[in-house]
Amino acid sequence: MSFAAAEALDAVDPLAGWRDKFVRPEGIIYLDGNSLGPLPKATLAATSDLVTRQWGERLIRSWNEGWIDAPQRVGAMIAPLIGAAADEVIVCDSTSVNLYKAVVAALRHDPSRKVVVSEAGNFPTDLYVVEGAVAAVPGAELRVVERGALADALGDDTALLLFTHVHYKTAERFDMAAWTTRAHRAGALMCWDLSHSGGAVAVELNAAGADLAVGCGYKYLNGGPGAPAFIYVAKRWQEQLQNPLSGWMGHAAPFDFVDDYRPASGMKRWLTGTPSVLGLAAFESGLRLWEGIDLAQIEAKSVALWAIFHAAGTAMGLECVTPADPAKRGSHISFRHSHAYEIVQALIAKGVIGDFRDPNILRFGLTPLTLSHVDVWHAGEMLRDIIESGEYRNPQYAERSAVT
Amino acid sequence: MSFAAAEALDAVDPLAGWRDKFVRPEGIIYLDGNSLGPLPKATLAATSDLVTRQWGERLIRSWNEGWIDAPQRVGAMIAPLIGAAADEVIVCDSTSVNLYKAVVAALRHDPSRKVVVSEAGNFPTDLYVVEGAVAAVPGAELRVVERGALADALGDDTALLLFTHVHYKTAERFDMAAWTTRAHRAGALMCWDLSHSGGAVAVELNAAGADLAVGCGYKYLNGGPGAPAFIYVAKRWQEQLQNPLSGWMGHAAPFDFVDDYRPASGMKRWLTGTPSVLGLAAFESGLRLWEGIDLAQIEAKSVALWAIFHAAGTAMGLECVTPADPAKRGSHISFRHSHAYEIVQALIAKGVIGDFRDPNILRFGLTPLTLSHVDVWHAGEMLRDIIESGEYRNPQYAERSAVT
Repeated sequence: MSFAAAEALDAVDPLAGWRDKFVRPEGIIYLDGNSLGPLPKATLAATSDLVTRQWGERLIRSWNEGWIDAPQRVGAMIAPLIGAAADEVIVCDSTSVNLYKAVVAALRHDPSRKVVVSEAGNFPTDLYVVEGAVAAVPGAELRVVERGALADALGDDTALLLFTHVHYKTAERFDMAAWTTRAHRAGALMCWDLSHSGGAVAVELNAAGADLAVGCGYKYLNGGPGAPAFIYVAKRWQEQLQNPLSGWMGHAAPFDFVDDYRPASGMKRWLTGTPSVLGLAAFESGLRLWEGIDLAQIEAKSVALWAIFHAAGTAMGLECVTPADPAKRGSHISFRHSHAYEIVQALIAKGVIGDFRDPNILRFGLTPLTLSHVDVWHAGEMLRDIIESGEYRNPQYAERSAVT
Repeated sequence: MSFAAAEALDAVDPLAGWRDKFVRPEGIIYLDGNSLGPLPKATLAATSDLVTRQWGERLIRSWNEGWIDAPQRVGAMIAPLIGAAADEVIVCDSTSVNLYKAVVAALRHDPSRKVVVSEAGNFPTDLYVVEGAVAAVPGAELRVVERGALADALGDDTALLLFTHVHYKTAERFDMAAWTTRAHRAGALMCWDLSHSGGAVAVELNAAGADLAVGCGYKYLNGGPGAPAFIYVAKRWQEQLQNPLSGWMGHAAPFDFVDDYRPASGMKRWLTGTPSVLGLAAFESGLRLWEGIDLAQIEAKSVALWAIFHAAGTAMGLECVTPADPAKRGSHISFRHSHAYEIVQALIAKGVIGDFRDPNILRFGLTPLTLSHVDVWHAGEMLRDIIESGEYRNPQYAERSAVT
């Protein structure tokens, strides 16, 4: 694609106005919003107000002035982005901790079913969490299956099918409705990890009939580093499933201070300890930018950005591992190359931030809200320069750091 | 005590310089630092730097520039306040979630012991969490015992003794060394909840021989609303106990993205998901104020503040439920009164913020770092005014709110 064509797409982009709502460091094209979404300009004011006024001036009184309901309020803002009702989502803890709650709850729901089925190569924390969760339920086990064999792995013993909707590495997207139906036909519950989906694609949990979902706040939803995560429990399960991490914030009457646990109704029972108020404030600010956004426009723009960068990468001989069919992928694109690490480092040195995933994947987030078509076009040019010139072979780019 | 005597104490107070390091809203005397510590003046700059520079400008690169080690770094700052080594404390999740990890780990360590003993009337979330934790270990149970019968409740079947070191309501303090020894004599592990102790009294976990501890960041440690919590695991247990909430941040090689969980060495294995980076930054800022502070001075000042407010309360006929012996209490003071709720509300209306605990307790935090003797003297005068005048009987003060 030519520069002029990218400019022309920007000129008619209905989401073009959002880019300026984010801080864009000078000289940086940020293709890592799928790992840590950039800073919304409004968020500094939101966190400053939280710190200076709500904490500093109002002190403990703020619990009655908005803090106590923040997990539900922020959850309700996520709901339209994932096809859920406002009272089916709550924000708390980390994705890993929320997943533990969901998996143990599902396993305890029907003790005749003992197996959690998930995909080999799923985002590792999902598998690690299930390892922990099955240890909390006698006889339960995790069955990790290659993608091609997943359908056959479902059976009478399956308690839960757990998928990451959009794969963290390849961006491959499961068909949510089809797999939820398959899980239900086998008599199992279906749990979706939406970490790479929320704000990236139009998610329709209720339309698909999903039972449980979790997801993170710091990627496409721009909630900030280590933002609290969310958990979705379909309305029909809310009074039937139990949160194994029973804590005071999930109690029916937390301020009665009674010795026995009695779970709250609705999503509130999925809370455990005191939530991160600071994290909730930043997340709420990030979610305000999503108000009124048509997810069909997000998907359409993602397709256009993807086409630009796909063309640039494949022209340079990179092997694209992300499906070509937009319905079968999320909003990032990954390439395979034997010098993936070095190319990513060379790009970062030139101001194009993407990331590397072991052992040979270059991954780039194409976030429709924060990038223009011209941004992605420029990043593609930079990729071309670095590969054509062989610059990535410079030994400085082979040096490894703690977080890759 | 006279105003002049309080002034004289302030004049020789070695901690007097700290009060001005905190934001003090005009017209407020804040006796609730045991519930939510006030805002350190430096914290707004710390959170603004986190948001604007680290997140906004450095973006994902900040993970390599300080974020990834923050849980250990901030944990090491807590260590001297609780008598632990720097590599025995890590900051993550909530107190409730960390307690779940500790209790399940202790129960699984020796499957021949099945009982967790704790105190009736312990801070409720501790009991709720143990209810959840025992459900994760076949045959395990929680035994809740009145304080007077606790020693007799320890036996061959006890896996863990769990106490809140300083009681949230009465401020009564357990003798840490004596009870840890009793637990060990019975063959049990000892876990301390330090939520009302850290920064309030000199805690000596290692000297007492404690095995496990948890605590919160938002009270005396001034880490901010919903600050991440901490967990302590004695060095000798770190490689032997397993975190039941196995997640990627606790993996030996989180960025290798392998399917199987392999716990990190040391405290890192007690991490689960991505930590709250924003919360860690605020907490770190709060903890900087504790650097170099002599906890003996904290305890001495607590005694002086307590004497002032105790005299004021008892002079008004309030029944003090906090032990008179400083070694047997923390740094808050509680009174019983049939109109506790109304008196607390009337005090708040006059700018003296304490809190009410169901059904008839007035609770006041006497935080040595943030209060002067004159502050507490003024608060005592206000208490006298409200009770002597009968003002607390005004019906407006009987109105209840969500968080009490």
